[in-house]
Amino acid sequence: MFEAAELGHKLRKAEFEEAVPDLRAQILQAQHQLKQTNSPLIIIVSGVQGAGKGGVVNRLNEWMDTRYIDTYAYWETSDEEEERPYNWRYWRTLPPRGETGILFGGWYSAELIDRGYEADDMSVIDSELSRIVDYERMLAVDGAVIVKFWYHLPRKVQRARLARLSEDERSYWRMAAKYAGRKKEFAKFSVLGERIIRATDTGLAPWHIIEATDSRYRDLTTGQVVLHALQRALAQDKSAARRDETVPPGPIVDADHATVLDKVDLSRSLLKDEYKKKLAGYQHKLNALSWEAYRLRRACVLVFEGWDASGKGGAIRRVTAATDARITRAIAVAAPTDEERAHHYLWRFWRHIPRAGHLLIFDRSWYGRVLVERVERFAAEDEWQRAYREINNFEQQLVEKGIVLVKYWLHIDQDEQLRRFKEREQTPHKQHKITEEDWRNREKWGDYERAVNDMVARTSTDYAPWTLVAGNDKKYARVEVLKTLCGALEAALEAS
Amino acid sequence: MFEAAELGHKLRKAEFEEAVPDLRAQILQAQHQLKQTNSPLIIIVSGVQGAGKGGVVNRLNEWMDTRYIDTYAYWETSDEEEERPYNWRYWRTLPPRGETGILFGGWYSAELIDRGYEADDMSVIDSELSRIVDYERMLAVDGAVIVKFWYHLPRKVQRARLARLSEDERSYWRMAAKYAGRKKEFAKFSVLGERIIRATDTGLAPWHIIEATDSRYRDLTTGQVVLHALQRALAQDKSAARRDETVPPGPIVDADHATVLDKVDLSRSLLKDEYKKKLAGYQHKLNALSWEAYRLRRACVLVFEGWDASGKGGAIRRVTAATDARITRAIAVAAPTDEERAHHYLWRFWRHIPRAGHLLIFDRSWYGRVLVERVERFAAEDEWQRAYREINNFEQQLVEKGIVLVKYWLHIDQDEQLRRFKEREQTPHKQHKITEEDWRNREKWGDYERAVNDMVARTSTDYAPWTLVAGNDKKYARVEVLKTLCGALEAALEAS
Repeated sequence: MFEAAELGHKLRKAEFEEAVPDLRAQILQAQHQLKQTNSPLIIIVSGVQGAGKGGVVNRLNEWMDTRYIDTYAYWETSDEEEERPYNWRYWRTLPPRGETGILFGGWYSAELIDRGYEADDMSVIDSELSRIVDYERMLAVDGAVIVKFWYHLPRKVQRARLARLSEDERSYWRMAAKYAGRKKEFAKFSVLGERIIRATDTGLAPWHIIEATDSRYRDLTTGQVVLHALQRALAQDKSAARRDETVPPGPIVDADHATVLDKVDLSRSLLKDEYKKKLAGYQHKLNALSWEAYRLRRACVLVFEGWDASGKGGAIRRVTAATDARITRAIAVAAPTDEERAHHYLWRFWRHIPRAGHLLIFDRSWYGRVLVERVERFAAEDEWQRAYREINNFEQQLVEKGIVLVKYWLHIDQDEQLRRFKEREQTPHKQHKITEEDWRNREKWGDYERAVNDMVARTSTDYAPWTLVAGNDKKYARVEVLKTLCGALEAALEAS
Repeated sequence: MFEAAELGHKLRKAEFEEAVPDLRAQILQAQHQLKQTNSPLIIIVSGVQGAGKGGVVNRLNEWMDTRYIDTYAYWETSDEEEERPYNWRYWRTLPPRGETGILFGGWYSAELIDRGYEADDMSVIDSELSRIVDYERMLAVDGAVIVKFWYHLPRKVQRARLARLSEDERSYWRMAAKYAGRKKEFAKFSVLGERIIRATDTGLAPWHIIEATDSRYRDLTTGQVVLHALQRALAQDKSAARRDETVPPGPIVDADHATVLDKVDLSRSLLKDEYKKKLAGYQHKLNALSWEAYRLRRACVLVFEGWDASGKGGAIRRVTAATDARITRAIAVAAPTDEERAHHYLWRFWRHIPRAGHLLIFDRSWYGRVLVERVERFAAEDEWQRAYREINNFEQQLVEKGIVLVKYWLHIDQDEQLRRFKEREQTPHKQHKITEEDWRNREKWGDYERAVNDMVARTSTDYAPWTLVAGNDKKYARVEVLKTLCGALEAALEAS
């Protein structure tokens, strides 16, 4: 695979200097056009040791308009990063739409490469590579232009260069030895590189293998690839959006129109005394469990979805009343800010993922994508269809990090909703809770039922199941919420 | 000072339950009105150990609309926080306009209190307290409503309560013992509390001392204070804005209209060969110094201001070309995002303050407040006048953390600017750099000269002096920028 990058490619200075001004002008122009689109440009810089990745990045920064570029390396992991799922560090550095992120290594991280290099069987990294393919596809179908560079050196050239670098006090390679890793044996690293490239070289996020023997050749070729990627992206932005071919084949079809919600027994209720007793009991228990989770550094994420006026707020307050405010946070998901709109829709949820041991409550969540955005057609069909898989992958990452994830759909029937809407209209301090929009949503009850059914069918996984809560009786619902949460925490902490 | 909070205040359950619904409705209403204003509400919860601060916060979260509230405690300092100036952790948790932040302790931090408590002479914390007064004034004149609670317990009550708490496995006080600190002796802590309150009890950010013996009394009083603060803020928002009485008395007046810029010798220039040699020499030196700063964990912040077309971009590229992209970042300051607009204008600069050892370049900066915002009247006179002091305080915090701060004004004359504007218009890949706005700004040359003069006069401090760079010759300017930066880094690192 690397044969073409061992030919001794080089450019004379005159050739280089003749080509640069025009290339630069074109890149700048394309970059400014990109600014008007919904596409971020992601440039990943990877490859063998000693190839001069820092030099390439400096060159790109020199040629491009740095006002719209941010460069990130991931060698200094902070404890805020360590406490979150691995990908959190990448989400926080993704460039906004129209701008460019140059990522040293990107998600082809030093850890991943070390792991593959040191294993007897390199297939240990295959499942991670296939996740990377998923991740890149997700970003690409959302508009991202992804260009990945793998810089290669012939064996002899690398050997000479590493010898020289190890004498240079100021090189990154020397200065940051503990991050840059130990020298890697050429042949073995080539096999690993090939495995990585083969597994992740896709039409949506292609690799470009570039010989780095001669820095002029290396830099000019890099610039040309960046320019072509930009031009392709701009041409495409005008035509149809890219489609993700892996999305499921449309809504779930069944003949009787029954949904999972039909099975919720809305007659469940609790008497006041029983409610008070159970509520106090579970709140007491939850308090203990939440501190225990804190001690064991297990975070917890709760998702509350449900019909308007189904009692989400009241249920959430019963949870927060039981836990210490120092380790609990509730996020009300409202309209995205402009910084949030400039990213993939999951970005605004990733940014809130809690630190170790903390409990975070989402009052509405990423499921808006397959509920309101589907029903109201804010998201295109293609977008919400692929969201199921994106959400499952997202939640899997949370759970694999040890986060306890509990998801509630608070269910009520239409009569109960009407009763509550009217009550809200008549109660002074509840009037702000009822708007025209609530009445409009209500008219689409059937569409929402279908959306909820599909959501549960496609995202109730063994690692993150949905809990459908019978909510016609608020007392019953609140106790049910606390009980489920205590159960989930207990199970998770026992396994810790 | 605490006598009134040792009277054994209490409320009967019936009284409490009668008062709450109305209070709650009023708070909710005021909270929703606040959402329409530019005022964030900052609630600081502090006081003696065992007073039930967690309980009060839970109560506020129960009573208020939690969709617009965020609660923060500062007991788990992350390394990302440790590496920045102390106040960075507070800036990142300030509530946006219209919303509420409940801050456990806030900037009356456990560290501050411990320091005062353990010192022989409590005056060690006085300078910090006076900075807090400054900080709170800055937030308040920007619109923030600040309410500070100090919860107090009579000595006997506290003793009994701490005994009980230490038996309760689940209390914050027990669970987070290492953060909650050791027991503090009543009398000494009272003296300290009084000192803190006296020093920081201002009209813009008043303290409320509340007896916490009875939780109903404590919570209801707290709710009433919050309501009054909200109502006052809402009434005020309609009337004149609050004014900061400490701002300097208007622009600097002198009879001859000479400015600091007149003294810049714009005839300075370098021949091409000399330039190449010097540039290479300083870039080499800068590379070594930047890695040395990295090793010593000293961050560096560069500020580039200057006329349009004065060569900021070119100078910045000469810096980034010399340093490793893994430890260098350039931020181009453009229009604020809506998240940024929802905070004090310094917030969007605080959020970028670099980690230890990194070099950050601001291409335009917080000085926009006293330059373009002053000249174009985007900021009211009161706002830009008080900005000098705010900026000096901000920069002092950076420097005290060990950050090397270097500020450049790139100066050119009007003829040179005209020449460059025309050149930009005629060069295809530079056309994007020249806009109508640049021509309009040019017409206000005199106003900008005056603004630059005042800026230098008021913000060129011994810890963060301005460097006025003669920029008519780009070669001279670039070398000058690098030379100054090397000098500043060298001096700082020698002192390390």
